[in-house]
Amino acid sequence: MLNGEKKIARPLRWAMIGGGRTSQVGYKHRTGALRDNTAFQLIAGAFDIDAERGKEFGVNIGVDENRCYPDYRTMFTEEAKREDGIEVVTIATPNGTHYEITKAALNAGLHVICEKPLFFTVEEGEEVKELAEKQGKIVGVTYGYSGNQMVLQMRAMIEQGKIGEIRVVDLQYTHGFNATDQGEKTSAAQKWRVDPKVAGPSFVLGDLSTHTYYMSELIMPEMKIKKLLCDRQSFVGTRAPLEDNAFVMMHYENGAVGRLWTSSINAGCMDGQRIRIVGTKASLEWWDSKPNQLKYEVQGEPAQTLIRAMPYMDETCNADERLGALHQEGLSEAWANIYLKFAVAIDAKNRGDEDTLKSLVYPDIDAGIQGIRWIENCVRSADNGGVWVEFETKKLVQA
Amino acid sequence: MLNGEKKIARPLRWAMIGGGRTSQVGYKHRTGALRDNTAFQLIAGAFDIDAERGKEFGVNIGVDENRCYPDYRTMFTEEAKREDGIEVVTIATPNGTHYEITKAALNAGLHVICEKPLFFTVEEGEEVKELAEKQGKIVGVTYGYSGNQMVLQMRAMIEQGKIGEIRVVDLQYTHGFNATDQGEKTSAAQKWRVDPKVAGPSFVLGDLSTHTYYMSELIMPEMKIKKLLCDRQSFVGTRAPLEDNAFVMMHYENGAVGRLWTSSINAGCMDGQRIRIVGTKASLEWWDSKPNQLKYEVQGEPAQTLIRAMPYMDETCNADERLGALHQEGLSEAWANIYLKFAVAIDAKNRGDEDTLKSLVYPDIDAGIQGIRWIENCVRSADNGGVWVEFETKKLVQA
Amino acid sequence: MLNGEKKIARPLRWAMIGGGRTSQVGYKHRTGALRDNTAFQLIAGAFDIDAERGKEFGVNIGVDENRCYPDYRTMFTEEAKREDGIEVVTIATPNGTHYEITKAALNAGLHVICEKPLFFTVEEGEEVKELAEKQGKIVGVTYGYSGNQMVLQMRAMIEQGKIGEIRVVDLQYTHGFNATDQGEKTSAAQKWRVDPKVAGPSFVLGDLSTHTYYMSELIMPEMKIKKLLCDRQSFVGTRAPLEDNAFVMMHYENGAVGRLWTSSINAGCMDGQRIRIVGTKASLEWWDSKPNQLKYEVQGEPAQTLIRAMPYMDETCNADERLGALHQEGLSEAWANIYLKFAVAIDAKNRGDEDTLKSLVYPDIDAGIQGIRWIENCVRSADNGGVWVEFETKKLVQA
Amino acid sequence: MLNGEKKIARPLRWAMIGGGRTSQVGYKHRTGALRDNTAFQLIAGAFDIDAERGKEFGVNIGVDENRCYPDYRTMFTEEAKREDGIEVVTIATPNGTHYEITKAALNAGLHVICEKPLFFTVEEGEEVKELAEKQGKIVGVTYGYSGNQMVLQMRAMIEQGKIGEIRVVDLQYTHGFNATDQGEKTSAAQKWRVDPKVAGPSFVLGDLSTHTYYMSELIMPEMKIKKLLCDRQSFVGTRAPLEDNAFVMMHYENGAVGRLWTSSINAGCMDGQRIRIVGTKASLEWWDSKPNQLKYEVQGEPAQTLIRAMPYMDETCNADERLGALHQEGLSEAWANIYLKFAVAIDAKNRGDEDTLKSLVYPDIDAGIQGIRWIENCVRSADNGGVWVEFETKKLVQA
Repeated sequence: MLNGEKKIARPLRWAMIGGGRTSQVGYKHRTGALRDNTAFQLIAGAFDIDAERGKEFGVNIGVDENRCYPDYRTMFTEEAKREDGIEVVTIATPNGTHYEITKAALNAGLHVICEKPLFFTVEEGEEVKELAEKQGKIVGVTYGYSGNQMVLQMRAMIEQGKIGEIRVVDLQYTHGFNATDQGEKTSAAQKWRVDPKVAGPSFVLGDLSTHTYYMSELIMPEMKIKKLLCDRQSFVGTRAPLEDNAFVMMHYENGAVGRLWTSSINAGCMDGQRIRIVGTKASLEWWDSKPNQLKYEVQGEPAQTLIRAMPYMDETCNADERLGALHQEGLSEAWANIYLKFAVAIDAKNRGDEDTLKSLVYPDIDAGIQGIRWIENCVRSADNGGVWVEFETKKLVQA
Repeated sequence: MLNGEKKIARPLRWAMIGGGRTSQVGYKHRTGALRDNTAFQLIAGAFDIDAERGKEFGVNIGVDENRCYPDYRTMFTEEAKREDGIEVVTIATPNGTHYEITKAALNAGLHVICEKPLFFTVEEGEEVKELAEKQGKIVGVTYGYSGNQMVLQMRAMIEQGKIGEIRVVDLQYTHGFNATDQGEKTSAAQKWRVDPKVAGPSFVLGDLSTHTYYMSELIMPEMKIKKLLCDRQSFVGTRAPLEDNAFVMMHYENGAVGRLWTSSINAGCMDGQRIRIVGTKASLEWWDSKPNQLKYEVQGEPAQTLIRAMPYMDETCNADERLGALHQEGLSEAWANIYLKFAVAIDAKNRGDEDTLKSLVYPDIDAGIQGIRWIENCVRSADNGGVWVEFETKKLVQA
Repeated sequence: MLNGEKKIARPLRWAMIGGGRTSQVGYKHRTGALRDNTAFQLIAGAFDIDAERGKEFGVNIGVDENRCYPDYRTMFTEEAKREDGIEVVTIATPNGTHYEITKAALNAGLHVICEKPLFFTVEEGEEVKELAEKQGKIVGVTYGYSGNQMVLQMRAMIEQGKIGEIRVVDLQYTHGFNATDQGEKTSAAQKWRVDPKVAGPSFVLGDLSTHTYYMSELIMPEMKIKKLLCDRQSFVGTRAPLEDNAFVMMHYENGAVGRLWTSSINAGCMDGQRIRIVGTKASLEWWDSKPNQLKYEVQGEPAQTLIRAMPYMDETCNADERLGALHQEGLSEAWANIYLKFAVAIDAKNRGDEDTLKSLVYPDIDAGIQGIRWIENCVRSADNGGVWVEFETKKLVQA
Repeated sequence: MLNGEKKIARPLRWAMIGGGRTSQVGYKHRTGALRDNTAFQLIAGAFDIDAERGKEFGVNIGVDENRCYPDYRTMFTEEAKREDGIEVVTIATPNGTHYEITKAALNAGLHVICEKPLFFTVEEGEEVKELAEKQGKIVGVTYGYSGNQMVLQMRAMIEQGKIGEIRVVDLQYTHGFNATDQGEKTSAAQKWRVDPKVAGPSFVLGDLSTHTYYMSELIMPEMKIKKLLCDRQSFVGTRAPLEDNAFVMMHYENGAVGRLWTSSINAGCMDGQRIRIVGTKASLEWWDSKPNQLKYEVQGEPAQTLIRAMPYMDETCNADERLGALHQEGLSEAWANIYLKFAVAIDAKNRGDEDTLKSLVYPDIDAGIQGIRWIENCVRSADNGGVWVEFETKKLVQA
């Protein structure tokens, strides 16, 4: 049960890069990080590529005018001069900039929290992981939905054998907001998402499905993909080679099979993500449009609907509980949960507390690299005609 | 609006082969055929492989004891001697017998209504089609769910451009009743379904997904599959080579893509079939567990739920309406709808009324052959390692 | 499990009064009675106040032209002359005619099945009950929804203590089809429903809520209403004094409380009936728009959804099972269930089988009288200003 | 669209009374007030009746140890001595203390935000309203759910005539957490809620239904209750005279009728609040368990589901939008919305900006008094035997 009481000695001194007035995701970072003011304190930022707009915005959200910087390099330099300088930075800029900024931040001695997909290639990920280790810093990745408590409930129930052995994994993250190309024409944020130079080798595979893929790993840590097949399309032709729709099929090492649908042209769909895990005895199903519920369907028994915050939920799930049953939580609590874990991880890293780091479940750099690997394997399969490919778990040269 | 008033001059003299006391599907045939007693009259039968049990059963459902036959051959012979002999016969026996019985019935001058999957090979289907044409008889196939009115509503709305051009087709027919092998051990009906000699080249692909595949053809008559890929599994190992789970991916000629999941090991799933058709503007979604509803989701507008029998439904949909809005219909009405169409088709065939035959939308022998073709292509892909195969539209030698 | 095999020695010779081409409910009677052709056989009728239209209709549904009568008196006279004359008659005419026709039928030696509300006054009901007893005949009342199996499941679970002691009863039967007065202007069936001379002392209280009230009695046979309060309105003014909306509050003898909402001006509502029974430990909730489901909510446990036909359902519920799990049933099965019970009751009465009659749960004349009593008490309360009135369980002079 | 940018010149200096570690609601106040750190800053508190525990808690949530006070009187005295002393205080203590603390706070020159139900009597409410006016201070009342944007959407749609004239109002706020008396035995917060000396004249009418009643006023500002009837029960007998279940019926001045059910013994119910407003043309329905949805049902048209944040929503609704469509909001956003309005109101009051105060829709002292009036009228009806009482809109002497 979380009520805002501190989990670490003092709030971390935090800055943002990007996430300003025109960003949709920036507010989610702040609302997650600043939930209780006991984990992070926002004291600086390079919020906008338009420096003036960024400064005005920063002041409006309570940042000292002098610590609203025109760009991240200046921020790193200037903050390094202060005794009360920033300790951790969030990177909420377009994909193509993550790699350089993360390296710069680590080299500046900062912990990093970065948007997904982390980088373009697994190689970059491995390189940055080494750097982070060398610098003794944390790199967290904001798979925001993964903070939803039902994910932990599913993980606990599967670990406890409540569904038996896993046979089928059914994943979906789709919406219809890009059914036409209007978004690209009117929104800078949508425009770069379909530009391979900025977005990387994928659109929806990276923008949407990495969330769901990461959650599936969180839920089923024992399950390993052996091979997969991806078929991707650009229904709005100007998006090619980047896909606005993709189907993936998976074979797991234990003989289970899976599939995933990701799309931004699923017209009218407002459900977002759906995760169904089918075991030999029962299934679990979660939709992010019903974030306070979990379906538990035992073959031959009445279907059960589990509700957030009830005493019958697993303690690992209820550990992240805030508002109590009947009181609906949503995406802001999911973000608050992962940001709180970032804070605990950073604090533990600073204190050299390896036990905490080992037991803490949160989207770390390995989760980020695994997301890139997911994209790489999907793209490799798709670009070879939608064929089965072994799921490469070592460094890959991008297809 | 249907209220039981006759659509044909007099009820057809009808017999059943199989469908006796131990059959689950037999009752569905009778409840469909005899709904209003103005389309069919059940006057004879060879209801059971156990002749005594079959006779007792026949008498109990009102058939003259003397017309409860020990087997179909005897029935064809004896009924042929009567002036009031049977005109049409329903075949509700295990798959492996359909081909021989259908040919015998056609040769005996009878119209045929047969369970799905129709036969084992497209070749058999084409041969029987020629025979039926020669004999001037109808062969109908009981894709029972396809009588649900929402299927016609979807067809009409797509034809009217209500969703734009089709981009994605998402089909599902899954349940969890075979999560273990208990069924095979206790039920003869389940036992033969996993025996290739009786069931043919597939289990769930034929038993379940042919329904959904046929409905997709009904809903989107303009859409043609170009190639598909099928990945099938036997999670209960004793079922191999027959599958209890399969994923299919499809490419349509217009550039649309599709997928289908069929399974009888989807533990706890009670939804049965789900059909979602995504267009450039909107989507339609139907679940057979909510047979009186249709979701219509226009991108950027409030989601709509259309309800059976309301005046805003298409006239082709409301033509099959019986109970009125608020009054829930179910699977029995779906069967009644297709059986009524079989009666109209048979009557038209008898009268040489080609116009009626051409305009009538019902599961005819072509629908039956197309179902076999679906299975053949899926199995061919699966047995070659889950690879893309061109969707053969000509006679195939089974892979 | 019902599969059409006969429950009585031979089908009863059955006729209908009313229920012709312009009737919405007539088809429901036929679809219920003739479901398996082993309980009733439709052999005569006076289907329509327009004798010609009635004859044409009768012939179209398979009745011998000579047994399509111009009126019920003629039918009773002529059929009495035949050895194979009718044995039981269904009355599906406007409310105001039920009393006279029922008496005439009983006096003609016929069993009676009558639409609800049965008559206008409890006195009439008691008189007819005496007559029926004297004549040795059954009077059944078509509370059609009450044949839904979930009603029996709720009854069994409550009897088994699955929800504890009952505290709160929440009943609803509302729709919005009379939000305007268009119905009265275009439909004869709607016009008489708001004419007190034909409809009796109520509109929606009788037309809708008697169903729900009867089901509540069926579900909770131990619960007795002590007092009630009714507040009724005529939102379309021309309907006054008959109500198109009413709220009722109830006190039961065990200290439980209840409420009921009935309305035909609940604009846009397509759910029909809802029944929620709250006990000390758990609640049961059923909606007729989801006729295959029952919600079972134990306080402090995951909510359960029970599904029709599953082995975990009570045997009294599954005794009425026809199609099997996953195969949706609807209103036609509910009607088939009560008509089958009418047949069994009539057969038992004919045979003097009191044991069967005592154990059979179906809407008999007492259920019909209790429905009239419900209306009378509600109207008495409402017409006195919406005050609490003792629930009169003896003969009442109508307020 | 809210993104955290300031709406007032600087955050208000805020303190809490109550709401400490053992309080469930205290966290909701903080999470609402501190959402973006641009409306309120928490700088002091008397968080707990146990001063030591309160201080430890205060420090843990970031309050200066020296400003964690043992009681509110000390806090008011000490803070008054500081230049940077508190300006506004939230009262999250048991009901019976609200009146004295509010007066003390106003007399100390503070704005007040107080839990509901505000006080015990309308008289107290009127007295405090006069005091607040004299002192030039705001009194806000935390009807937390009322900040849900769908409430504003309903208000806008009704004002625009989208449902026609209102006929029926159906309100519900029920749960089952007090189905037994375990709560009273284990939780101090539950114990005082059933003690009339602390809770006042009602339990669930005040604790639950005042929320729903206020929202109904917000949604339908033109609708005035003319008379009502309340029937209340204490199913757990030790709670008497305070009710754990109540039914209310209402007549509005325009001829509409309404009803409300509030209960904490509705075993297994997890839906919380439900509001349905039926008009001549259409209905609106909202459940707080689906806080991102609104049902809009036009009679004769497909039912519509409106989704939060979509462009088709009213601008007054989208003005409170934060996370964007697909991204679920919950109760924390509702609290953030009302706290932001409190801040705007306080700032306007401080600046003498009457225009802003007049146009701002938020739960002010009149809303608080109206809630007390609601309880008083319900209790007066119930305690007189569940009779109709005129809805007193002037000062009442409590019955």
